[in-house]
Amino acid sequence: MAKGMKCALIGQAFMGKAHSNAYRQVSRFFDLPLQPEMHKIAARDGAALEPFAKAQGWAGWTTDWRSLADDPEVGMVDVSTPNHLHREMSLAMLKAGKHVACEKPLASTLEEAREMRDAARKAKASKTFVWFNYRRAPAIALAWQMLRKKRLGQIYHVRASYLQSWGMASTPMGWRFKKKHAGSGAHGDLNAHIVDLARFLLQEEIVEVHGAVARTFVKQRTWAETGKQARCDVDDAVLFLGSFAGGATASFEATRLAPGHLNDNTIEINGELGSLRWNLENLNELWLHEESERPGESGWRRISATDGANHPYADAWWPGGHIIGYEHTFTNQLADMMRVLARKKPIMPVADFADAYETQRVLEAALVSARERCAVPLSEIR
Amino acid sequence: MAKGMKCALIGQAFMGKAHSNAYRQVSRFFDLPLQPEMHKIAARDGAALEPFAKAQGWAGWTTDWRSLADDPEVGMVDVSTPNHLHREMSLAMLKAGKHVACEKPLASTLEEAREMRDAARKAKASKTFVWFNYRRAPAIALAWQMLRKKRLGQIYHVRASYLQSWGMASTPMGWRFKKKHAGSGAHGDLNAHIVDLARFLLQEEIVEVHGAVARTFVKQRTWAETGKQARCDVDDAVLFLGSFAGGATASFEATRLAPGHLNDNTIEINGELGSLRWNLENLNELWLHEESERPGESGWRRISATDGANHPYADAWWPGGHIIGYEHTFTNQLADMMRVLARKKPIMPVADFADAYETQRVLEAALVSARERCAVPLSEIR
Amino acid sequence: MAKGMKCALIGQAFMGKAHSNAYRQVSRFFDLPLQPEMHKIAARDGAALEPFAKAQGWAGWTTDWRSLADDPEVGMVDVSTPNHLHREMSLAMLKAGKHVACEKPLASTLEEAREMRDAARKAKASKTFVWFNYRRAPAIALAWQMLRKKRLGQIYHVRASYLQSWGMASTPMGWRFKKKHAGSGAHGDLNAHIVDLARFLLQEEIVEVHGAVARTFVKQRTWAETGKQARCDVDDAVLFLGSFAGGATASFEATRLAPGHLNDNTIEINGELGSLRWNLENLNELWLHEESERPGESGWRRISATDGANHPYADAWWPGGHIIGYEHTFTNQLADMMRVLARKKPIMPVADFADAYETQRVLEAALVSARERCAVPLSEIR
Amino acid sequence: MAKGMKCALIGQAFMGKAHSNAYRQVSRFFDLPLQPEMHKIAARDGAALEPFAKAQGWAGWTTDWRSLADDPEVGMVDVSTPNHLHREMSLAMLKAGKHVACEKPLASTLEEAREMRDAARKAKASKTFVWFNYRRAPAIALAWQMLRKKRLGQIYHVRASYLQSWGMASTPMGWRFKKKHAGSGAHGDLNAHIVDLARFLLQEEIVEVHGAVARTFVKQRTWAETGKQARCDVDDAVLFLGSFAGGATASFEATRLAPGHLNDNTIEINGELGSLRWNLENLNELWLHEESERPGESGWRRISATDGANHPYADAWWPGGHIIGYEHTFTNQLADMMRVLARKKPIMPVADFADAYETQRVLEAALVSARERCAVPLSEIR
Repeated sequence: MAKGMKCALIGQAFMGKAHSNAYRQVSRFFDLPLQPEMHKIAARDGAALEPFAKAQGWAGWTTDWRSLADDPEVGMVDVSTPNHLHREMSLAMLKAGKHVACEKPLASTLEEAREMRDAARKAKASKTFVWFNYRRAPAIALAWQMLRKKRLGQIYHVRASYLQSWGMASTPMGWRFKKKHAGSGAHGDLNAHIVDLARFLLQEEIVEVHGAVARTFVKQRTWAETGKQARCDVDDAVLFLGSFAGGATASFEATRLAPGHLNDNTIEINGELGSLRWNLENLNELWLHEESERPGESGWRRISATDGANHPYADAWWPGGHIIGYEHTFTNQLADMMRVLARKKPIMPVADFADAYETQRVLEAALVSARERCAVPLSEIR
Repeated sequence: MAKGMKCALIGQAFMGKAHSNAYRQVSRFFDLPLQPEMHKIAARDGAALEPFAKAQGWAGWTTDWRSLADDPEVGMVDVSTPNHLHREMSLAMLKAGKHVACEKPLASTLEEAREMRDAARKAKASKTFVWFNYRRAPAIALAWQMLRKKRLGQIYHVRASYLQSWGMASTPMGWRFKKKHAGSGAHGDLNAHIVDLARFLLQEEIVEVHGAVARTFVKQRTWAETGKQARCDVDDAVLFLGSFAGGATASFEATRLAPGHLNDNTIEINGELGSLRWNLENLNELWLHEESERPGESGWRRISATDGANHPYADAWWPGGHIIGYEHTFTNQLADMMRVLARKKPIMPVADFADAYETQRVLEAALVSARERCAVPLSEIR
Repeated sequence: MAKGMKCALIGQAFMGKAHSNAYRQVSRFFDLPLQPEMHKIAARDGAALEPFAKAQGWAGWTTDWRSLADDPEVGMVDVSTPNHLHREMSLAMLKAGKHVACEKPLASTLEEAREMRDAARKAKASKTFVWFNYRRAPAIALAWQMLRKKRLGQIYHVRASYLQSWGMASTPMGWRFKKKHAGSGAHGDLNAHIVDLARFLLQEEIVEVHGAVARTFVKQRTWAETGKQARCDVDDAVLFLGSFAGGATASFEATRLAPGHLNDNTIEINGELGSLRWNLENLNELWLHEESERPGESGWRRISATDGANHPYADAWWPGGHIIGYEHTFTNQLADMMRVLARKKPIMPVADFADAYETQRVLEAALVSARERCAVPLSEIR
Repeated sequence: MAKGMKCALIGQAFMGKAHSNAYRQVSRFFDLPLQPEMHKIAARDGAALEPFAKAQGWAGWTTDWRSLADDPEVGMVDVSTPNHLHREMSLAMLKAGKHVACEKPLASTLEEAREMRDAARKAKASKTFVWFNYRRAPAIALAWQMLRKKRLGQIYHVRASYLQSWGMASTPMGWRFKKKHAGSGAHGDLNAHIVDLARFLLQEEIVEVHGAVARTFVKQRTWAETGKQARCDVDDAVLFLGSFAGGATASFEATRLAPGHLNDNTIEINGELGSLRWNLENLNELWLHEESERPGESGWRRISATDGANHPYADAWWPGGHIIGYEHTFTNQLADMMRVLARKKPIMPVADFADAYETQRVLEAALVSARERCAVPLSEIR
């Protein structure tokens, strides 16, 4: 029987629920060389913690996250807290010799991210992971395999956007709108995902940012509890343009104010031999266009990436045509993390702190561009 | 019976055919206060000209376009030649007191465009028009009406791209790849359309460009006739970011190397109260999302803009659900031009030289941004 | 220069306009061995006729359709009148030695259709045609070519429906709701189209009808002019099941009461090697699925049938990605009719009276099944 | 804390895995008045059983399903075996006073189904359930709510098809192709689902079947293990037409030979005030068309039924825009079953044996129609 590794989770909100599910489910569906055990959960809200821990299947719970560092049984700590806490918690756990799985974005600032990368480098016995879970939608993993085989030839364009609409003016104030807690707005939350996806799929780095614009459309929001107004100091939307090392252009757009888009993470790649397209709201589908079809017969093709015989991760789940949901991407990632910890090859590469730091550099370059480089006012063009 | 105006066309290629069709068809479908008469066509290739003229229904033909200026019967001259000829021809015709309808983009350079705008200003008796024909897809005109009524509230985002795929490496050399004739590549050809569409729909101006990137992926192409290689000196793709006066962000992308997209001019607008989306390959459809639906029932809605009782231009054509094609947008525009010439109100505003000059300024700002403003190399971000 | 044939049209309503357009446009776009000349139009409403004739480009007009038979110049007569007039007019014109192009359905009743077929057989010098125009959407013609080459292997299923929504209860009374004039309702109007399409594409005959249901949901309608109520005595919807000679099942549904469907003629074919799907509201697109793709990569593929180098009829129109509209299917058909009359091969086979009679037999079998064969009441099943 | 009920499952194949997941997950996501406990699983294949039971979280296991009847701790038995075993197992468990949840279709034959209904009637202390799990996709439940409120007015048409493609000629022989084990082919497997969905959504009964056709296209298949050929004696496809009590027409089609359709359960309903459409491959989406939109603005609207505040079941899962997968429909159903057992109101009505018997009667009527009622051969129509 497979060995186990005791895992601890910090955080009990939305991500806490999604991660808990992954720990609970992963061994039911994957045949793993190392099985995660739901050892302990840590969170601040003591009243809510016990029922949450029980409902989600955690054996223990604590309001003192630091105590996890001292628990010799804990093999891996999963940091699923707001962004401003990632650095401190990850560093403490690395110092204590734990493996660390951190939610994205890696950190609130590039400086923090750099510290985390450096700490990970030093902690040679520890593995680090970052929860860029969308890499592990089977359709994305299939696209990665195709791109690995150079199926699209030279890449010309990457077009990525992550459009949501929960940030309309009517939405009350919350931690995600405060720089102190969130670091940034849509940029860190959403652009982090699509920059990672683009880097992951192209398997090369972004080398230049050509321009960026950041906007906070809704300047004030009301705290639901107190009725008080407060200033939003993070972006609602950030757009930027970049170039990949191989010459491909890339455009990125993240926004929380795009009505009609609930969770629309879309990426398209155009190359010399064809194109690929995916979006999160139909995450089981990969669209492929190949120039090599019979003359007059090429066209975008909808592949349902649900076939266990042919699609990564799909054999763990259901027969072809039976779709999986959002949370399965976390379960798939946990399976790969367990394989890495057992020194086996993961189905898809998992981002570690060094990898996530590269994404953070791209996000930072966009901020620098938005802030420091001069735009061209139309008044100059006569 | 409606009066007529004798019209002349310069050009016999693709655009010559599309424009000829509009002149021939417009009075069959629209009840116009002034009817265009197909008086004369001018083009260089004398051998091809006569059969083309006859097939398309032109009463006369000439290889000397300048002679049109001296023909007192000609009321309007339609300049449908490659971009580098627009200025000279338009100026000559304005000088001769003709009304001028020019293909887009207005000119190869901003300087030429400015000259044309100034000439149009001076020629007080002449009307000028630019063939931004997509304004007149009924679905776009419907979107314009909705935006006119502020149906989307404050606008947050405009997302426009014009993706084609005929410029792959296998495509032979041609005038569209030479700066001398085309002025620019995808930028003038495709971004011109989507910048015009965005300005037209938002009914306000772009005030700033935040960054741009231009690429020529295919550096050399072969002349089909001679087998000789030649250098491509126009862009294959240009992307840029901008801001509208009201604060909306805008992204534009034009490319000829996006496999799977033949003629994919797509625009989406997100605002406080909803969103609109359109693409040229399904030009009869307008997608609308409204936040105001019953709770839990909002969603993107596909409107078939084919209903004569409710959709602009549609009553000229077929019953609801019977789609129109690409060339109908020219016919619709010609109908509006004739109304303007008869001092009637067009169904939708028609771009004149001054209006098209504003689009040209935006294109120029993007080029300046791509050329002169420093990008942020990732090597700076450590 | 190509020879001409003087053509006459009977009818000035919706179909009169669509047919007139085809006569006016066909020689502008197709290089034909025989060119139709717009000689004369006949219609009952004399007041409307002259302006209609002039606007549409007919050289002459008459309120006496019979006079066309005596006009020695007339080569072909186009019968575009309500269904109950098809027989009388076609027979008169065949007797006078004219070629006859008749709107679909061939006739109001099977008896009339049989008479027409027999008359066509006898009139050896005359060609007959029926306006099943959707055969000539380039996407359908492409599907026909694929099926001709057995690209789908053995055919298992044909699924055809023609859904409209203009027949809701609020729609006033009109000739299309009266059996005397229309013969039938959705059945003759819409099922005629999809039965023809299915037979055309499969290139084999329907041999059996397995059940049918006809419904008149809206029993009474109001005449807009008089405000008087009248009984609707045609069907609003007819569904039936059949089998093709080769064993494929076929389902057909026609209705005028399907909200959300304006003109939704959809056909899908499933075979041993793949599937094809088309719908009229996006008539430029053909969807193809092939089982033979690489494992894990098959999927529905959207082909834009707009490429002149590869798609039937498309070279007459615009470059790839520039869509054509509804009326082009008539123009394409007229081009083929002219080729047949010049003893050249049409791009796609044109239905003649004998062919259309086969479609009428299938419609009749469905009516017999709906009327005479016993349904199974659930009360019998205990 | 909520009380528990010990549950037992019979079956360890695909359905065994999907049901096990529901038992394991339901209390993690739903706040239930009664919690299912994973007491024991029974299956024939003893070697596979223990690892399956452990992996899936069952506390005990047995190869003797009958022993469950004698286990006083067992409150509910879930029958997830091939169809021919449903009757015997359900009857035994009802006799032992257990609640019974049975997979669909209820039974292999109408006679068996009747026996089961009658046994359920007699077993007054037992509740029965049938796993028509698609009722519980949030998008379907939302449609049910709309139809409950008569949002579509009078219903005209129901159009349901369940198209799969795993039954191509290359597929080896298996129990699903043998009448002895499966009872029927696509009819019981797939038509059972869509007849239930149609009855569930319309909330009225089918009163008549108007015609049907059944086909076995692939007559022989090869056993993978032995290489021997065997005869397929179930249908590959069954189509039939019916009428609902309120007059709506209904068409049903089930097939395993529709390439391009993996698991395409699609239903559309057209009524006086609008239409609804859903398909299983995008099970989170409901398409709605309403006639009541502003003139010229109606159209099909895509609702993402993922919003906990507004969509049934969705609050148990993830924030809006985060999709759920196939297996969640079972979990949702189990939640409702537990509510029923705790004498609380389920979110959506759960089918019991009496309800499933009505679906079985419709399937039987289709078979009678296919078998006994005369089709109309085209040879009769001259």
